[in-house]
Amino acid sequence: MRYTYDPIRDVFSKSVSGSEKEKRLAGESAASRVLEGDIVGLGTGSTALYAIQALGEAVKQGLEIRGVSTSFQSSQLAEKVGIPLIRLSEVDRIDIAIDGADQVAGFDLVKGEGAAHTREKIVASAADKFIVAVDSTKVSDILNKTVPIEVLFSARTIVTSRIKDMGGNPELRFSVRKDGPVSTENGNILLDCDFGDIESPLLLSKEISDIPGVVDHGLFVNMASEIHIGRGSGVEIQKE
Amino acid sequence: MRYTYDPIRDVFSKSVSGSEKEKRLAGESAASRVLEGDIVGLGTGSTALYAIQALGEAVKQGLEIRGVSTSFQSSQLAEKVGIPLIRLSEVDRIDIAIDGADQVAGFDLVKGEGAAHTREKIVASAADKFIVAVDSTKVSDILNKTVPIEVLFSARTIVTSRIKDMGGNPELRFSVRKDGPVSTENGNILLDCDFGDIESPLLLSKEISDIPGVVDHGLFVNMASEIHIGRGSGVEIQKE
Repeated sequence: MRYTYDPIRDVFSKSVSGSEKEKRLAGESAASRVLEGDIVGLGTGSTALYAIQALGEAVKQGLEIRGVSTSFQSSQLAEKVGIPLIRLSEVDRIDIAIDGADQVAGFDLVKGEGAAHTREKIVASAADKFIVAVDSTKVSDILNKTVPIEVLFSARTIVTSRIKDMGGNPELRFSVRKDGPVSTENGNILLDCDFGDIESPLLLSKEISDIPGVVDHGLFVNMASEIHIGRGSGVEIQKE
Repeated sequence: MRYTYDPIRDVFSKSVSGSEKEKRLAGESAASRVLEGDIVGLGTGSTALYAIQALGEAVKQGLEIRGVSTSFQSSQLAEKVGIPLIRLSEVDRIDIAIDGADQVAGFDLVKGEGAAHTREKIVASAADKFIVAVDSTKVSDILNKTVPIEVLFSARTIVTSRIKDMGGNPELRFSVRKDGPVSTENGNILLDCDFGDIESPLLLSKEISDIPGVVDHGLFVNMASEIHIGRGSGVEIQKE
């Protein structure tokens, strides 16, 4: 590799919130669910990092798995720690997917701060088990974080109008290291949408998915099999 | 323009079905719904062509409208006949959209033979009135044509598997003038999906929209305001 991208530095260059210790405990706990021979969906972000590092250690000890990455960052981390990767298009199902979340209420999630949620959702949707790992600051009684919506570039004005009609407050996500908006790894843009308290994530999820011009959004409803929550020096595991 | 693209030749280079006379009558009838000052969504394909040509004539006679195109072909046709264009991203609503369809049952449509259905649906969704123009061969009691689904390249295997789980038979659309699959104007690929007789277009539409990796699909449900059907030497108009 001639470029100097460092996936671990990339993770920590973001304004990540929450306790590193809790993230590590949650990530390692999630990683412990992976079995010999599994095809494993590898999440993106600061908590998925710890799961990927733990899986890398297990691979060095002889565990045979194949990873399916959810982003550039996730691919680079997996390569760095020695997890063999296969392409998403090579599989029609995945044994287990592990990923973080920006907010968790029950088994529903808001994701997408890292802009990888479209591919993360494809991977999670194909997984028999979807294990979510978070530190305790991510847990909430009700989802109320802004929902990132990936939108086709040309549809931004019309989708913005539709979101407002639905009572949401959309803001185009601007980039820091380029002029103009953030461009996703699919070549689209993001609207970060404030819906206040989300009383019915399922209804909102379906309503957003139905808007023409929307590629996918950060609400993950009824997808998680287990939530691993780092709390102090331990991990609380919630199962369906 | 240094290239030799001819939008009218492009339309007729496709294996278009149905009577040219009926298409022309339907397209002209739909165009007659456009009013002074309207922002007009301009469809794609062989019937929309006649509507765009009729609007071009009206513009030459002094009608002041602005067009929003749904595709490269649609933009080029509008330029050729002198309809002033504005970008989709400049508008948050459209007065009237006119487009063809591959199949019509009641007020529900299958579109997407021309691979422009994602942008066509964005435009139709933003329009106060959506006027559909078809020749009589497109009318059916029940929708049973293959539904084109625009899919992210990397999600093709997993979406194929999901469609099969739903009882559909998906086929990747291959290109004639390039190797490999057709690439849409959004940079994605198409799965043409046979669902047999579609008993509930609304349910199927929502179910497909909800699949991670799907950008949009060719089912247009409850969107049309009027259907203008060319029949022999006349036009039958169905209104909601």
